[in-house]
Amino acid sequence: MKVAILMGSASDKEKMRGAAKALSLFGVPYEARIISAHRAPELLEREAARLEREGVECFIAGAGLAAHLPGVLASKTVVPVIGVPLNGALGGLDALLSIVQMPKNVPVATVAIDNAFNAGILAVQILALKYPELRERLIDYRTKMKAEFEEQNSPVDLEAQE
Amino acid sequence: MKVAILMGSASDKEKMRGAAKALSLFGVPYEARIISAHRAPELLEREAARLEREGVECFIAGAGLAAHLPGVLASKTVVPVIGVPLNGALGGLDALLSIVQMPKNVPVATVAIDNAFNAGILAVQILALKYPELRERLIDYRTKMKAEFEEQNSPVDLEAQE
Amino acid sequence: MKVAILMGSASDKEKMRGAAKALSLFGVPYEARIISAHRAPELLEREAARLEREGVECFIAGAGLAAHLPGVLASKTVVPVIGVPLNGALGGLDALLSIVQMPKNVPVATVAIDNAFNAGILAVQILALKYPELRERLIDYRTKMKAEFEEQNSPVDLEAQE
Amino acid sequence: MKVAILMGSASDKEKMRGAAKALSLFGVPYEARIISAHRAPELLEREAARLEREGVECFIAGAGLAAHLPGVLASKTVVPVIGVPLNGALGGLDALLSIVQMPKNVPVATVAIDNAFNAGILAVQILALKYPELRERLIDYRTKMKAEFEEQNSPVDLEAQE
Amino acid sequence: MKVAILMGSASDKEKMRGAAKALSLFGVPYEARIISAHRAPELLEREAARLEREGVECFIAGAGLAAHLPGVLASKTVVPVIGVPLNGALGGLDALLSIVQMPKNVPVATVAIDNAFNAGILAVQILALKYPELRERLIDYRTKMKAEFEEQNSPVDLEAQE
Amino acid sequence: MKVAILMGSASDKEKMRGAAKALSLFGVPYEARIISAHRAPELLEREAARLEREGVECFIAGAGLAAHLPGVLASKTVVPVIGVPLNGALGGLDALLSIVQMPKNVPVATVAIDNAFNAGILAVQILALKYPELRERLIDYRTKMKAEFEEQNSPVDLEAQE
Amino acid sequence: MKVAILMGSASDKEKMRGAAKALSLFGVPYEARIISAHRAPELLEREAARLEREGVECFIAGAGLAAHLPGVLASKTVVPVIGVPLNGALGGLDALLSIVQMPKNVPVATVAIDNAFNAGILAVQILALKYPELRERLIDYRTKMKAEFEEQNSPVDLEAQE
Amino acid sequence: MKVAILMGSASDKEKMRGAAKALSLFGVPYEARIISAHRAPELLEREAARLEREGVECFIAGAGLAAHLPGVLASKTVVPVIGVPLNGALGGLDALLSIVQMPKNVPVATVAIDNAFNAGILAVQILALKYPELRERLIDYRTKMKAEFEEQNSPVDLEAQE
Repeated sequence: MKVAILMGSASDKEKMRGAAKALSLFGVPYEARIISAHRAPELLEREAARLEREGVECFIAGAGLAAHLPGVLASKTVVPVIGVPLNGALGGLDALLSIVQMPKNVPVATVAIDNAFNAGILAVQILALKYPELRERLIDYRTKMKAEFEEQNSPVDLEAQE
Repeated sequence: MKVAILMGSASDKEKMRGAAKALSLFGVPYEARIISAHRAPELLEREAARLEREGVECFIAGAGLAAHLPGVLASKTVVPVIGVPLNGALGGLDALLSIVQMPKNVPVATVAIDNAFNAGILAVQILALKYPELRERLIDYRTKMKAEFEEQNSPVDLEAQE
Repeated sequence: MKVAILMGSASDKEKMRGAAKALSLFGVPYEARIISAHRAPELLEREAARLEREGVECFIAGAGLAAHLPGVLASKTVVPVIGVPLNGALGGLDALLSIVQMPKNVPVATVAIDNAFNAGILAVQILALKYPELRERLIDYRTKMKAEFEEQNSPVDLEAQE
Repeated sequence: MKVAILMGSASDKEKMRGAAKALSLFGVPYEARIISAHRAPELLEREAARLEREGVECFIAGAGLAAHLPGVLASKTVVPVIGVPLNGALGGLDALLSIVQMPKNVPVATVAIDNAFNAGILAVQILALKYPELRERLIDYRTKMKAEFEEQNSPVDLEAQE
Repeated sequence: MKVAILMGSASDKEKMRGAAKALSLFGVPYEARIISAHRAPELLEREAARLEREGVECFIAGAGLAAHLPGVLASKTVVPVIGVPLNGALGGLDALLSIVQMPKNVPVATVAIDNAFNAGILAVQILALKYPELRERLIDYRTKMKAEFEEQNSPVDLEAQE
Repeated sequence: MKVAILMGSASDKEKMRGAAKALSLFGVPYEARIISAHRAPELLEREAARLEREGVECFIAGAGLAAHLPGVLASKTVVPVIGVPLNGALGGLDALLSIVQMPKNVPVATVAIDNAFNAGILAVQILALKYPELRERLIDYRTKMKAEFEEQNSPVDLEAQE
Repeated sequence: MKVAILMGSASDKEKMRGAAKALSLFGVPYEARIISAHRAPELLEREAARLEREGVECFIAGAGLAAHLPGVLASKTVVPVIGVPLNGALGGLDALLSIVQMPKNVPVATVAIDNAFNAGILAVQILALKYPELRERLIDYRTKMKAEFEEQNSPVDLEAQE
Repeated sequence: MKVAILMGSASDKEKMRGAAKALSLFGVPYEARIISAHRAPELLEREAARLEREGVECFIAGAGLAAHLPGVLASKTVVPVIGVPLNGALGGLDALLSIVQMPKNVPVATVAIDNAFNAGILAVQILALKYPELRERLIDYRTKMKAEFEEQNSPVDLEAQE
């Protein structure tokens, strides 16, 4: 069981930590790499092929601006690719549209702008189809999340100043 | 192996055929239902629970406007939910943002506006993790797609009027 | 007479204070709760039902991003639901469209982005139909507001530096 | 019990029928008028005052472009004003923002672009606070709406061509 | 010769100084007032009428959000109204559309977002039709502006760090 | 008394008729020309200078896409320039922003997208400062417009099908 | 001297004719191919390399939606790549942002939405640096274009109905 | 061999340094000037003509808001003009549309918002058609860029806090 986290630039590292955090929460191993689709296309191709050969079952790819990394990756593999639009300009609308509006036959599973954590959760949900222990952990996680809301469920004081 | 295709309104049927078409191409059985998240919330809950019990391994949900169906579904299950934004107003920007911008912990795998076919392909890619025969078919499909481009690869005459 | 103020996350508290402030100005009792539509859907359903049973006559719901809370609430009750789009990304455009673009039969009364105070005022205006004392207070409030503009009405010095 | 439906131009009539239809479904009497906020401001003021004097308990106002009618109306009355953004340009985004982004103290309860029907439903929900028979009818309406979804709930054939 | 500068809120003062500055540069007298179109509609009407009676030949009106002040003013007078969209949300797009998209027969002369200075210049250009001395000053101002570019016209060093 | 109506392309003629119609309604003479700012810059310069020499007191300029015509014109003259954004793409948002967002010192008085009629009305309002007969006609026009609303002011039947 | 025109799909042919037309006007030979960046990535790579080897000095690439073709091409070659955003959804805003917002080091020379003709003109302007005869033809073309405006320069009748 | 870098205002200098930096990296001489299209149109015309006479083979023009500089320049010369949209408002969307949406016959080669560096790279790519040494340097630069990615290619630690 393995997920690959790719990002286009070292400056995306901080925002992509969320994906690693989510995967770690569920005990899913991952390998993260910085590979630009535009500046190192051959490396991307080689690494994508290697990662797939080594059994990666889900790619998470984060990119900003004209964010081609997830789509280019999706054109090289039939493994599901999750795209994370990163806000580099225009509130991230450019990255969102560059990732989600993929043409027929080559989808990218897009999550919210700057929400790499959710990309990690989605990867776990996808892997859980094959790995029943992940499904158990997801159900536990959801149950715990709901329990926390239940526990904290009490009237909120909106008068008090913080 | 089973996928569920849900849509919020009978008027979404025409646009959601693409998902069924893609699943059929790969021999993936599906069940399609029209259930509004807002107008029939209890039915949605009951049907989602039933479908999950019956072994649905991926949900495809299409909706327009303030498109809550995919997100509401995602809050009820840990099975992956693929969201298809349908253009009902504003070029579909409202549906896209309502589906893709999900908060922490509850992702929806969003595809392009009105591109239900790609939701079907993505569902096949997800199921292929568990069902190796689907992986084979996806690779064949890609190979064939590329071969078609190769075959048709010849200079295009842009002078001729059509 | 009672209003319920719901919000999807503890981080929305600061922005939702405005609603409480407006209600307090008019002596309208309220109960505020933090309940995520996506992360605690059953709790939301139970609390919404309880609040309605206890006589809540208006809901105010604030949420950001793919803001489903107001719409999901509106699908569970026939009591008016006022939605407050909170700016979490894209200037709040995602939340605005996710709240206002509700489909046929299930409206949400949407106010301006981050303007929870106006949600409170609107709730008072709605309650005033039934409670004439609120109508008097609203008219007084408007009269006072206008009087302040009248009192302060004098040429403004735009040369002076502040 | 009475609702007023105002619109800025005779060309808005077709789109505003939905509001009348929804009110009629619930037996709520209404009076509809065409009064432009910009081209007949004094008439608007006089009619708004008359309508309020005659006991109108909710205003529905539809307008397109720089849609000021709902906001101007809201500045003249403390009765709730429901605004319907009408698509005249830019997909209706101009009308939506002109109506929903009201400043502090003067809210307009905004519904979806071109969705006058929902404005009617919202008006009924607001009036239902005071008129219990409307509440009953709303609950019946919802129950019937859900029952229809239940009745029609069966697998949809997405293969058949229409 | 007189221009009126109106703004919807005291918080707009800083941004509207530009209009005063431009008018002062050309020796055009002005009167500035803070009058909300929504919160003090009667005062606005009275003051607009007084200002017009006293010979105001151009209105400059700045407002943010659902910026109705310029349009409401334009509906009360046939004197030209210059609208300044102020950025209060969404980068000022809401104010821009609320001001510029006026319907048939009631135009507002709209300038750039937050550019009150240009509203002042435009007012001077309008008044210059009637007051030839303003035309002279405008030509001088343009000539001087161009001369400054001419004087400063030399290669710029883009290597040096600032 | 004379107004010049310029447009960038012969295909803009139909949309720019409105300006001519409004000017004719008030008896204001005009001269209309098709001159592209980008494709015939010298002609534009020469014609603008000639028109100004011949006493043009207001320019109306309509353009679509990257609509530079009004701004380029405004850089050549101190006579007021009214800009009409024409919808050629993106709903006219490109033309609107290209016209209204002018930098310091060179304003363009922008009206609504495709609303050349309002450009004509605004030109009349500007000329009316100098020509009192236009002011009378504008007041008459407004009075008549309001009277029409008054005359037609009766409850509208929204049930009848058209 | 040779230009390559690439497009992602056969359905783009009609819109891309403009590029061929412009090149033919100036006697610039071209080769046009339909190669999808996502569906035939290896073919794209091979053809791009071949075209460059055969001396292509400028690429024109048109694509819609998440339009990666121009950017992917630009990552494979140092020959200038001109990108044409094609309107497939959202008025072409998705394609525009996907093409123009390229990251550091890998620019795409982007032209207007659906304006393949201008891509052709830009290619000629680029080639004209090396081929003086093209520069002459461009100057002639401009001169002729201006002469046409000069010839047709006469007052336009905006009264006549067409 | 020479490139001209023009910008509309001294405040654009910081953002336009990137263009100079890219050109210097490749040993391409340039001359930079601050010339506003709107505030110094005659100077722009004179300087553009002089620069072209002196052998400038590519223009780079940066501007914000209603960014006409690149387009106006493109209307005066047949030398390629590269436009850099600068973010002055609305995230730079106004400048982007004002630059990229040029009409038929007068293209501007537009790069990403605030990305003057890429304008420099594009200029080098264009000049490389004529100057083979630049082509060599571009290939070296790309090779080095790729090598750096190769060298740094190792799993990234997303756990460590920075």
